[in-house]
Amino acid sequence: MKPIFAVMQKSLILIQCKDEVGLVALITRILAQHNLNITAMREFVDESAECFFARIEFTGEVKEANKLSNELLQDLPANAQVVINPRTEKRIAVLVTKEYHCLGDTLVRHNFNTLGAKVCCVAGNYNTLQSFTERFDIPFHYISHENKPKEQFEAELIAALENHELDYIILAKFMRILSPAFVERFANKIINIHHSFLPAFIGANPYRQAYDRGVKLLGATAHFVTNDLDEGPIIVQQTIPVNHTFGTQQMVIAGKEIEKSVLSKAMHLVFQDRVFLSGNRTIIFE
Amino acid sequence: MKPIFAVMQKSLILIQCKDEVGLVALITRILAQHNLNITAMREFVDESAECFFARIEFTGEVKEANKLSNELLQDLPANAQVVINPRTEKRIAVLVTKEYHCLGDTLVRHNFNTLGAKVCCVAGNYNTLQSFTERFDIPFHYISHENKPKEQFEAELIAALENHELDYIILAKFMRILSPAFVERFANKIINIHHSFLPAFIGANPYRQAYDRGVKLLGATAHFVTNDLDEGPIIVQQTIPVNHTFGTQQMVIAGKEIEKSVLSKAMHLVFQDRVFLSGNRTIIFE
Amino acid sequence: MKPIFAVMQKSLILIQCKDEVGLVALITRILAQHNLNITAMREFVDESAECFFARIEFTGEVKEANKLSNELLQDLPANAQVVINPRTEKRIAVLVTKEYHCLGDTLVRHNFNTLGAKVCCVAGNYNTLQSFTERFDIPFHYISHENKPKEQFEAELIAALENHELDYIILAKFMRILSPAFVERFANKIINIHHSFLPAFIGANPYRQAYDRGVKLLGATAHFVTNDLDEGPIIVQQTIPVNHTFGTQQMVIAGKEIEKSVLSKAMHLVFQDRVFLSGNRTIIFE
Amino acid sequence: MKPIFAVMQKSLILIQCKDEVGLVALITRILAQHNLNITAMREFVDESAECFFARIEFTGEVKEANKLSNELLQDLPANAQVVINPRTEKRIAVLVTKEYHCLGDTLVRHNFNTLGAKVCCVAGNYNTLQSFTERFDIPFHYISHENKPKEQFEAELIAALENHELDYIILAKFMRILSPAFVERFANKIINIHHSFLPAFIGANPYRQAYDRGVKLLGATAHFVTNDLDEGPIIVQQTIPVNHTFGTQQMVIAGKEIEKSVLSKAMHLVFQDRVFLSGNRTIIFE
Repeated sequence: MKPIFAVMQKSLILIQCKDEVGLVALITRILAQHNLNITAMREFVDESAECFFARIEFTGEVKEANKLSNELLQDLPANAQVVINPRTEKRIAVLVTKEYHCLGDTLVRHNFNTLGAKVCCVAGNYNTLQSFTERFDIPFHYISHENKPKEQFEAELIAALENHELDYIILAKFMRILSPAFVERFANKIINIHHSFLPAFIGANPYRQAYDRGVKLLGATAHFVTNDLDEGPIIVQQTIPVNHTFGTQQMVIAGKEIEKSVLSKAMHLVFQDRVFLSGNRTIIFE
Repeated sequence: MKPIFAVMQKSLILIQCKDEVGLVALITRILAQHNLNITAMREFVDESAECFFARIEFTGEVKEANKLSNELLQDLPANAQVVINPRTEKRIAVLVTKEYHCLGDTLVRHNFNTLGAKVCCVAGNYNTLQSFTERFDIPFHYISHENKPKEQFEAELIAALENHELDYIILAKFMRILSPAFVERFANKIINIHHSFLPAFIGANPYRQAYDRGVKLLGATAHFVTNDLDEGPIIVQQTIPVNHTFGTQQMVIAGKEIEKSVLSKAMHLVFQDRVFLSGNRTIIFE
Repeated sequence: MKPIFAVMQKSLILIQCKDEVGLVALITRILAQHNLNITAMREFVDESAECFFARIEFTGEVKEANKLSNELLQDLPANAQVVINPRTEKRIAVLVTKEYHCLGDTLVRHNFNTLGAKVCCVAGNYNTLQSFTERFDIPFHYISHENKPKEQFEAELIAALENHELDYIILAKFMRILSPAFVERFANKIINIHHSFLPAFIGANPYRQAYDRGVKLLGATAHFVTNDLDEGPIIVQQTIPVNHTFGTQQMVIAGKEIEKSVLSKAMHLVFQDRVFLSGNRTIIFE
Repeated sequence: MKPIFAVMQKSLILIQCKDEVGLVALITRILAQHNLNITAMREFVDESAECFFARIEFTGEVKEANKLSNELLQDLPANAQVVINPRTEKRIAVLVTKEYHCLGDTLVRHNFNTLGAKVCCVAGNYNTLQSFTERFDIPFHYISHENKPKEQFEAELIAALENHELDYIILAKFMRILSPAFVERFANKIINIHHSFLPAFIGANPYRQAYDRGVKLLGATAHFVTNDLDEGPIIVQQTIPVNHTFGTQQMVIAGKEIEKSVLSKAMHLVFQDRVFLSGNRTIIFE
């Protein structure tokens, strides 16, 4: 079956650098010299950060990628980042604990080549989802966190992940807090799905708190992971209505639906290279 | 012009009491004895509060309302509350400070008899919205809070409000915190619209905080006012998407749209007697 | 793993009959006599059809279901339909052609006991989805429609389905039009998911038409199947935004997402016995 | 009171022309030569129409607008359209019949300088909304369509509109069909709000049809008017949920809410010069 996402992929250049006058002119002149025709260009200046971001779709073959890259880097401000034709099908690992809903949706899309990514492996600190994962012929690493120091747990995790040339690690309801060292090792590559409410409930039993507060909306947030598990740059947030007939357990069920949807949307955007990081904020060229 | 909301009003009974076995049977037997035909009945038991709520629309004329009420109260658990045919067009006052968006929407609906309520007066602690209000031939009470103790400010407010037989007081971006005494005086009658975010931002300059956090949604909450201005039972919550192109001021603009929509929805539900209070939660028979 | 949907199931009575004065009183009196306590009752009178619908959740054990049923039927108008404690976990078959998105979501939920139904089998007029189905240990019946009259095709289909005591047949992107005889045989049991647009596009290549028209929304509709495949009582409709950057193929992708979501929501409502049929309309007690 | 929309206005160039290789490079080179710094550029190639669209926000003062325009037109493909710093506050007229909801929202925003446009006048074929309009000190032209040929009616309308240097004419529930001659005279300047359903209902009494069909969504569409009143390029479409408790009249009420919201959104986009026309489709740089 032909992957239908393929139609959305064109040749692509991603640029991120300090802002200056004339950047778009400079970039587009160089592309024109290489006979590349821009079909859709998204560009944004984060004025508070004085930072420039561009995502350029074009037609025409890049014959000398190194030469093009060097020409761009030479004329752009210092420390610019240029990516020419990033990998179309990302390579990812999925980390889970016991909840299936985000993993299930991800594996079905993967199975039919519409995820935009290859799931290289799944790792879980429980083996609850092992047999489900293996139904899809994907390796499952059961790495318990019990009876061992966090360093050892994470070392085993890294051992399972490091040979896959991963672009992203998806925390699909992975209920362990990762150390700063782990997060640093996979900087800007870890995406988490977080149940977040209106107002946000912190601490134990968030759905009980939401019920007691009588909220009329539940939400979820997908974000990059920085040192604080629940605080990195937000990619997608959505909410769904609930009402007085929802008890705590029904709120849990509704929350899972919105988590699944939000994580799926976030992966879609990230895997298409539409998401840039600017400090603790994301620039998203939808 | 005929008020179009009138079509939604049927004869109505509202009941709230401690839960017991057989309440629906009891109530409906009495109604049948009075030759009233139930066309839509909404009933809910809040099991954690052991409380029963019912909203009953019916056809047939209530000839002896007192007799019907007494029969119900006699057989229902102690301290039951029964309301037969509540006032169809509520009487309200609107309290404002300087922002027009919620007031504007309310006065236009009032002008065309589709608010479901009569706006008896508007009161403001600034006179910014006086001329706008008077365009609609509605009295505006300018009651400054400056250079006087809060007791005096609220006494003047009460003097302006108390002769209107008000069903509800709408805080349409009224930026003063009301005292417990004021709230107590109009218990369960004050409705506020609150800019609330995902996650909720408290303290000064909430939109600046939302911008810095890079949120992808803004929200608003309409709620009954209890002693804490931002903490009463929630009636309506909604969110709208924002993105990286929104600066702080554009977030303010977007926030106003959602506040207007949420307050309007809340008034619609409350004025149709669809909202019951159960502790800090609302039961809403939409 | 404990099925989380179980928490939503209480004892249940469903009633549908001609409208009359005093029905709720009558019904609730009989329930009280059986010592059953109503915890949530939803009742609606379709005035244009003069038809009464009730869904009653209650606590307390039904000791003599036949007696209770007979007492209700004796006092209700002629031809009333009464169902006491319908099967909690419905039995369903899923019919597919080549598209996986609705089937995938359904089988994952089934796998984790959160569908609210047991998928007894999947049948397809192509074998495209056979291996995927079998990953979940569910029998797949490959019944080609090619080189045979429709009567024979449907006879083979019926043979595959008829021994499963099915409550519902889900057309999860099943691209064959069923004969009136087939529909009649499974009257009110067949649910279809239909790609429907704003405005609705009929005929060949609907997404091309939607693209040409420049729509800003795509939609989907889940409905019961009557003799006309696209015309039965609507259960759920939703839309999602699209914009000028969506080509025809991206509209197809977006359409699949909304189809999946809409069918899932419809199954959730139907399997919880929240959906009643009233002519060509549905009454849904959400 | 300072108009808050002003913050969203930066210097702006709009370009529309036949697509060619190197257009972005060409345009941005010329801007850089004029010392203008692009802060946000949106660009799109409609490949099926071979047409290029760009919306460029920049900082820096345009000192010689004619020279800049000529330089652009000289190098761009033939028949290119270039607009430099279009009028920030558009000039509009609003045409109405009897329904107030869209007009009310528009006049309140106008009153507080947040519409992004000046309402030069309102014209109605009934005088139902005259006194309401005049509350806002805006001239109302009552131009009856009765007892006169359409040519005369439209001639009177044109006489009332033509001296206002209008950018747009808003049909805010104007229930007369305009002639091709009228539409031609204000080509690409007339915006209509249309009640459109899922599926679309044509002909008399659309809400009755929607009720009979048992739809679960109502919608509305804002579009530019071409020769067929209901068929021009779509700007905004939205839907809202309805359910079995909505009778025809309540559907009418709900429909008005969504119409108001959709027209408001469309005006916001158009008045900020974010909407381009490409045949029967719109390109919208939100």
